[in-house]
Amino acid sequence: MKYFAAVAAAGLSLMAPALAESAGAVAAARDWRADHGAEILAGFVDLLSLPNDANDAENIRRNADYITALFAERGFEMALLESDEAPPLIYGLRETPGAARTIAIYVHYDGQPTEPADWTHPPFEPRLYTRAMTEGGEEIAFPKRGEPVDEDWRIYARSASDDKAPIPALLATIDALDEAGIGFTSNIKLIFDGEEEAGSDYLDDYLRLHADKFADVDLWLFCDGPTHQSGRPQLVFGVRGVTGLDVTVYGPNRGLHSGHYGNWAPGPGWRLAQLLASMKDEKGRVLIKDFYKSSAPISKAERAAIAAMPDTDATLRETFGLAETEMDNAPLGERLLLPALNLKGLKSAEVGALSRNVIPPTATASIGLRLVKGNDPDAMLDLVEAHIEKQGFFIVREDPDAAMRAKHPLIAKVTRSGGYPAMRSNMDDARVAPLIAALKDAAGEDLILNPSLGGSLPLYMFESVSDAPIVILPIANYDNNQHSADENIRLGNLFYGVDAYAAVLTMAAE
Amino acid sequence: MKYFAAVAAAGLSLMAPALAESAGAVAAARDWRADHGAEILAGFVDLLSLPNDANDAENIRRNADYITALFAERGFEMALLESDEAPPLIYGLRETPGAARTIAIYVHYDGQPTEPADWTHPPFEPRLYTRAMTEGGEEIAFPKRGEPVDEDWRIYARSASDDKAPIPALLATIDALDEAGIGFTSNIKLIFDGEEEAGSDYLDDYLRLHADKFADVDLWLFCDGPTHQSGRPQLVFGVRGVTGLDVTVYGPNRGLHSGHYGNWAPGPGWRLAQLLASMKDEKGRVLIKDFYKSSAPISKAERAAIAAMPDTDATLRETFGLAETEMDNAPLGERLLLPALNLKGLKSAEVGALSRNVIPPTATASIGLRLVKGNDPDAMLDLVEAHIEKQGFFIVREDPDAAMRAKHPLIAKVTRSGGYPAMRSNMDDARVAPLIAALKDAAGEDLILNPSLGGSLPLYMFESVSDAPIVILPIANYDNNQHSADENIRLGNLFYGVDAYAAVLTMAAE
Repeated sequence: MKYFAAVAAAGLSLMAPALAESAGAVAAARDWRADHGAEILAGFVDLLSLPNDANDAENIRRNADYITALFAERGFEMALLESDEAPPLIYGLRETPGAARTIAIYVHYDGQPTEPADWTHPPFEPRLYTRAMTEGGEEIAFPKRGEPVDEDWRIYARSASDDKAPIPALLATIDALDEAGIGFTSNIKLIFDGEEEAGSDYLDDYLRLHADKFADVDLWLFCDGPTHQSGRPQLVFGVRGVTGLDVTVYGPNRGLHSGHYGNWAPGPGWRLAQLLASMKDEKGRVLIKDFYKSSAPISKAERAAIAAMPDTDATLRETFGLAETEMDNAPLGERLLLPALNLKGLKSAEVGALSRNVIPPTATASIGLRLVKGNDPDAMLDLVEAHIEKQGFFIVREDPDAAMRAKHPLIAKVTRSGGYPAMRSNMDDARVAPLIAALKDAAGEDLILNPSLGGSLPLYMFESVSDAPIVILPIANYDNNQHSADENIRLGNLFYGVDAYAAVLTMAAE
Repeated sequence: MKYFAAVAAAGLSLMAPALAESAGAVAAARDWRADHGAEILAGFVDLLSLPNDANDAENIRRNADYITALFAERGFEMALLESDEAPPLIYGLRETPGAARTIAIYVHYDGQPTEPADWTHPPFEPRLYTRAMTEGGEEIAFPKRGEPVDEDWRIYARSASDDKAPIPALLATIDALDEAGIGFTSNIKLIFDGEEEAGSDYLDDYLRLHADKFADVDLWLFCDGPTHQSGRPQLVFGVRGVTGLDVTVYGPNRGLHSGHYGNWAPGPGWRLAQLLASMKDEKGRVLIKDFYKSSAPISKAERAAIAAMPDTDATLRETFGLAETEMDNAPLGERLLLPALNLKGLKSAEVGALSRNVIPPTATASIGLRLVKGNDPDAMLDLVEAHIEKQGFFIVREDPDAAMRAKHPLIAKVTRSGGYPAMRSNMDDARVAPLIAALKDAAGEDLILNPSLGGSLPLYMFESVSDAPIVILPIANYDNNQHSADENIRLGNLFYGVDAYAAVLTMAAE
């Protein structure tokens, strides 16, 4: 991967005498992992051998206890926070004398449920390969202490990338810095979630019940997810929110013979098509009044960051078989800073071989919204409903009865989904500037500053705890088979984590 | 049912001395069936006891032989026409000395396949009820010879209405007229189809192979189907044709994450909605260029006939839960004389509980066309395709490959269905005037002249055999459970057939 060449190049310059504090720490981390690669892998194998489905209470607790012990050995005051039947939240604190800043590091130690039949090897029996199985990698034995490791090697196991990888990386960083006598520059808090893949239902409770533990956080660091599609490391400042609705429109109260009643009885499919066509134009512009109005403007820093991101748009278009994308090929990075109206599904009677000569009683569209900073999920759904009403539809929550049908030629049943807002941190925030500077010591100039992922995570929750910026620092390789069989991590990516966390733990004061 | 009151009233006037020929014949038919009701039923029970699924070759032939014998006994020269593995076509001729006209009577003697488990009684064991089971009718024994019968009684059995009923009715008519010494006024040809419910695949072959037998037909009479929704008897002059197409439009070549790519990758559902919305406006007017152009104009006679038809539109709207119908509640009768563009189905990914956060790869619409006289099925599909192209779509017949996708932002796969044209006879044709006049003797002024059914039958086939008008004379009650379990016929309707056929067989010369 391209960034490792860049990292190597940066590594040479690190030997220069006038090292920044974090640059020295990164160099120490590199030395450490070069000497202790086999031991780092051995510890990771032990952790990966513990099954970690959030619904498997016994094994989840084994993970929590195991991780707690590892950080306790390294000077962290540890606690398992509990709430009802939820997996425990692992909390830890290592105070740094004189530090004026507290960084909270989020990792999740649970993993996606597994379907062992789909895996090449059992998901909780980690295996080492010379490279990706899909690229002809071959299985090899794990190295013995002192033997060298290769950055292209991959470990296959559930949660190898998502999201246990940050744990051995962070442990190695701490060991490296402690061994070299390099102190942290911040107080470090740990918050390791045990049910992220099961929806983090209790996270909000934990944050509220233990608000005192998190009120002093100055920077939230989310260690999860993959690096950029280009293969380059990234620091991400936001995620989109999400909500949605299903809309059903009505024709006759039963399927009618399309010969006996065709071009007399109104077809619900036409009504739905007309309604949908009124919502979005052919370029992809949403026509719903005020749909874009509440969106936070794109800042100068965000525009600059997008301009500096690798332009993979043309490649993605080719990969996905798209001659054009919305708004005349507007850049993906910019589009992700606007709310999206997605048509996730359509259904009315049947098509193809199953279709019958019928005027169907209903037609339904499933519409998803992705939200950006400033968009309130309920308010956005209100705008969509107002648009539907403006098109002449009477809105109901249940299927209409005869009296309603007699009164209203156009009826739309709207079923709202739940949802949550976006989160987007200010890229100009003085509290993130030292992080960006430090990370460049680990990642080199290849580091991408990404204003927002397109996808959604409920990071908005952390905005209510403190006003601290929230950033995501992913380390996993993009092709890690996250959520699928044969999940894996490339060792180069694991080791990038060691370097990156060394930069984080030693970043300069503001 | 209303028309039987009218018939009874007309019956009184039939006693007047200056009877038209057909009025006398109708009176004779009435007398006959009043005296021989129990025997007519007994004969019908024997016929209904023969299973008649078109795919059951052995039983189909038993039906054909049985029916052939009955008409042979009544002076018809009979023949079973054969073609490959198809059920035989029953052909018959009874010449009338001096007649200048030949009427061909079409009936089908096969029936829909049955699911005996859904029936109250086995479908080929006829039962008699005092009225419809659904109206509280009770089973009674079939009457003995000489015992009276009641017009509200119903016989339950497969094909009781669809379409064996015309056979005992026609036999009773012939017996009544022969007994009364009333001669026919036309040569009568019989053409009894044995595979109508299986698609009449071989009918075209039969007509072509035996063209000489049908070239001299002056009037085609189709004895099939139910009376009008109003319950009144009708004479029908046309049917709509049918064709259709499936249209699939494309988004990305795989389902994409709606967060990562939403409002960048174009969604196929929006494209389909925009395409469909361009085809039909909110009133129901089709916007495809020239869609209505080839349609035969509605004649003065047709307009008058529609105006005279019972206005059941408001009742149908209430029944079907429709506040309004297309084109500001334009009359159903008029709408059926225009081609229809029906949206039979829509499909893209999933909706409701099954929907996922995806930008689907495709969206498909199943579109049905109903055609009227003048509309060529292929030419109509060409118009739809031209419209799709005009909206910017590149039309393909198979899913597009990468090169096609790279070249064309908008791609539509069009899959055409088969189909056939409409048939509509000229209501002013001098050859049908005597039929209308004669039928009024049987049906009274309640007789509805219906320019066209909305549904489709391949009657266009008979237009190639001769230039004779083609009319449909249905007798079955509207609530006969045609094609379903517990199919039945009301005796009043069966006996209306006896009267109506008496009028047909004795109608005046042109």
